[in-house]
Amino acid sequence: MIKGYTLPRTPKGKSSLVPNPPWHYVGNVLAVEYVADQEKAAAFLPEGLKLASNQCGIYFIEWQYTSDSEEAYLDPVCSQYRETIILLSASYKDTPVAYCPFIWVDQDKSLMRGLIQGWPKQIGETWITRSYDIPSKASPLLGKGGRFGAALSVGGRRLAETKVTLIEESNSLPTPAFASAVNVRYFPELIKDKHDQPAVHQLVQLKSRNVKTSQILKGEASMEIFDHPYTELPDLKPITVVAGYRFSVALTVDDLIHLRDLR
Amino acid sequence: MIKGYTLPRTPKGKSSLVPNPPWHYVGNVLAVEYVADQEKAAAFLPEGLKLASNQCGIYFIEWQYTSDSEEAYLDPVCSQYRETIILLSASYKDTPVAYCPFIWVDQDKSLMRGLIQGWPKQIGETWITRSYDIPSKASPLLGKGGRFGAALSVGGRRLAETKVTLIEESNSLPTPAFASAVNVRYFPELIKDKHDQPAVHQLVQLKSRNVKTSQILKGEASMEIFDHPYTELPDLKPITVVAGYRFSVALTVDDLIHLRDLR
Amino acid sequence: MIKGYTLPRTPKGKSSLVPNPPWHYVGNVLAVEYVADQEKAAAFLPEGLKLASNQCGIYFIEWQYTSDSEEAYLDPVCSQYRETIILLSASYKDTPVAYCPFIWVDQDKSLMRGLIQGWPKQIGETWITRSYDIPSKASPLLGKGGRFGAALSVGGRRLAETKVTLIEESNSLPTPAFASAVNVRYFPELIKDKHDQPAVHQLVQLKSRNVKTSQILKGEASMEIFDHPYTELPDLKPITVVAGYRFSVALTVDDLIHLRDLR
Amino acid sequence: MIKGYTLPRTPKGKSSLVPNPPWHYVGNVLAVEYVADQEKAAAFLPEGLKLASNQCGIYFIEWQYTSDSEEAYLDPVCSQYRETIILLSASYKDTPVAYCPFIWVDQDKSLMRGLIQGWPKQIGETWITRSYDIPSKASPLLGKGGRFGAALSVGGRRLAETKVTLIEESNSLPTPAFASAVNVRYFPELIKDKHDQPAVHQLVQLKSRNVKTSQILKGEASMEIFDHPYTELPDLKPITVVAGYRFSVALTVDDLIHLRDLR
Repeated sequence: MIKGYTLPRTPKGKSSLVPNPPWHYVGNVLAVEYVADQEKAAAFLPEGLKLASNQCGIYFIEWQYTSDSEEAYLDPVCSQYRETIILLSASYKDTPVAYCPFIWVDQDKSLMRGLIQGWPKQIGETWITRSYDIPSKASPLLGKGGRFGAALSVGGRRLAETKVTLIEESNSLPTPAFASAVNVRYFPELIKDKHDQPAVHQLVQLKSRNVKTSQILKGEASMEIFDHPYTELPDLKPITVVAGYRFSVALTVDDLIHLRDLR
Repeated sequence: MIKGYTLPRTPKGKSSLVPNPPWHYVGNVLAVEYVADQEKAAAFLPEGLKLASNQCGIYFIEWQYTSDSEEAYLDPVCSQYRETIILLSASYKDTPVAYCPFIWVDQDKSLMRGLIQGWPKQIGETWITRSYDIPSKASPLLGKGGRFGAALSVGGRRLAETKVTLIEESNSLPTPAFASAVNVRYFPELIKDKHDQPAVHQLVQLKSRNVKTSQILKGEASMEIFDHPYTELPDLKPITVVAGYRFSVALTVDDLIHLRDLR
Repeated sequence: MIKGYTLPRTPKGKSSLVPNPPWHYVGNVLAVEYVADQEKAAAFLPEGLKLASNQCGIYFIEWQYTSDSEEAYLDPVCSQYRETIILLSASYKDTPVAYCPFIWVDQDKSLMRGLIQGWPKQIGETWITRSYDIPSKASPLLGKGGRFGAALSVGGRRLAETKVTLIEESNSLPTPAFASAVNVRYFPELIKDKHDQPAVHQLVQLKSRNVKTSQILKGEASMEIFDHPYTELPDLKPITVVAGYRFSVALTVDDLIHLRDLR
Repeated sequence: MIKGYTLPRTPKGKSSLVPNPPWHYVGNVLAVEYVADQEKAAAFLPEGLKLASNQCGIYFIEWQYTSDSEEAYLDPVCSQYRETIILLSASYKDTPVAYCPFIWVDQDKSLMRGLIQGWPKQIGETWITRSYDIPSKASPLLGKGGRFGAALSVGGRRLAETKVTLIEESNSLPTPAFASAVNVRYFPELIKDKHDQPAVHQLVQLKSRNVKTSQILKGEASMEIFDHPYTELPDLKPITVVAGYRFSVALTVDDLIHLRDLR
């Protein structure tokens, strides 16, 4: 009997790319609220969601992860990864929700955990300015006047970049926010003549728990999305940039809400 | 209406990590037949398969890929990847088949195509000696006396390596062979209390077509699998090494055989 | 007594990043001849060289290397690397020579061997279409009609790309050619007030030996150099593209010609 | 006239891999003091240095860098890198100094700045546990009881790893310390018959300024150095481990002390 939460499933069940939930995360976030073209943004939504506003979010996050049964962060090659998330402002049955059309990570474990939650993860490289605990010309201040940059590259092409100058503390997180996003779980069929009949096609909602955030710093931002031959991300280019944010977040994932079967 | 064969699904359907089949592949292969512990090997098989022999195969492959609709190989960052495959000799209803307990690739597109076919793909780095078309001290001869090496590293740890010295032409491919392997398609559930009730759990068989192989060269080999804290691959260490092979292969994938639902 | 041809120098001298010459190389080359702005190209030349023509070359090469004392190609993580070279058509004392303003490799050993020869090497990612020995939709023909692509990315930004369609055999290599290039060896000083007084500043000429080339295939090409915030490479953008080439080359390096001290 | 502090030197001087000093650094450090074999350690020292003690240091550092003229940290792909440093306890003319036999970084710019200072830099991958500013199962406490790990891989082989449990505040940095290390600047000759007559071979001492450190946390540590086919690092394996440290450091480099010409 082989076992394990994901492939590869093995005799002892200790080789799965991703172990059994719960999965615990902590990350430093640089985020930008921006406005995209309303019609183009609406076209990215799956069946069951409507566009609530043309305000979008882009999140650049430097994560550390651990499972319940092991101190994975002691072997950081297994637990650290960086991520870029694009979010749209949608509504599901008149309730505001976030929807993610694009997301990139730099690690297979994170990619697999993402697919299980319906995040449309691909591999990409995210870089984010860090703030250090001692004064240095090489570190921005984590406070008024501190300047942070972030960038996303996919396949050796730069896709997005931002610069944020912090101005003040904020009482609220950027909108849309990712902790309760609505995603599409999708697992294709390969049998001939059934390529358009996926084995899994579900509208789901994340159910993060233990969500904690640090002090939230807000400021001015610039943000660009660049042209690229193979992705429709440029259809979600910023028309105007609203604000930039810097904060830390922790959360735990071990559940999911099934909203609707889309098959 | 969003569309696409895999996530991300988008308005034009041009952003999917993996496009609609068919998928065309060509690769240079360094392979080793070896014998593992019978009892340990048997324990890796899923329900429905029996161990036919304790002869295993390890394949190191440098692939180039293209889809039907685009000359993907003109942008090789999208189409080239390297892979290491472990295969066991199994039988399904008394028919000999290969089964793959472990496989590593270095690209997300290949990882996703693999998951759809039931390959238990993870990210790892494969390196394989190349032969060049002109004489040089820096290139082995693709013929008698030519020596080739290959290695697999995962998360910065070397997991396996081989050295092969070519001796003669062979009439047959190494056994077990990957073109008609039996795999397990598996997509987990995340809803609480259903973590052990996967949404997809199927025994499937690959249905490659247009399979072509070059001249097959065979010789002596050494091969090692190293200890590693998180994978059970070392349970499939070589007891004896049978032979090494070097050849090229091309094939097309756009179908799959459903053998049994394992839920 | 520590020893070794380069740092790190150690008791046994076996840890140097680069061992004692000779160094043997073999590579597959995709190259493009193109014309750049005459005045801008001339400005890139060091003291001692004059611009001979505004014809430039860009070479994308997939190398395998070995030293004399070890079959380095059996551990290919140590011996394989990819490179992009830009060359200008210059003259030294009325003799035509090539001069390299920019070059990128993806491996430290190659970077160090390059610095010793005066190549201004930096780390970058090069991708080149491969041709395989069996027919496949995923492989171009190494002959009339075969189409090849190549690209260079640096720091996650695409810097250059080309597409070549092979038409016919050629009797000659592209011009300018790299085997006898003139380079500047340069090792800076860090002592305060001496930052502009390098410890080494020499005009040198490569002295490759055992140079062998395969059949040379020539054809049509397109080539682009993209804008980039930190490099002056875009000043060498193509005005017109002359021709594309595909061939293999082998050579040995263990000597250098000192032309002039530039201090 | 081409210009620039390092190659590539160009018309505007804006393309050098490394710009003119000063160079400003800030980093988070996980370090371990340990004892190696006295005789073996002594054998690694260059002419002019004697072994002062068999206590060694290994430092794992996550750096952010900026130059004077640009806010490089706003494009973090250019300014962030990770490093592993080995240090020996030496003396120069009866003054205690540190000497570095081995060092690995993951970025070309840092490698080049290193060579100029005599650091024997090679490319390797360093991973270090991070502490975050909010409580999470995925983050160690930056204080008593916090556990941190770090590891070094080179060419896909793990070379060293450590685990540190913080116990108390310390008044002093680990010994030996890197800020005033003595290095060997070395630039080889390639002209035939002069391969053993380097163009540059100098004993130098670093002259960091603006050195600032955070609170220093000290604790228990385990540390291992693994066997490897091509490096003599295993000759500096730990016999006993003394203590582990976690702190942040900032410093500026724009000068160097010339101690002795070794040619």
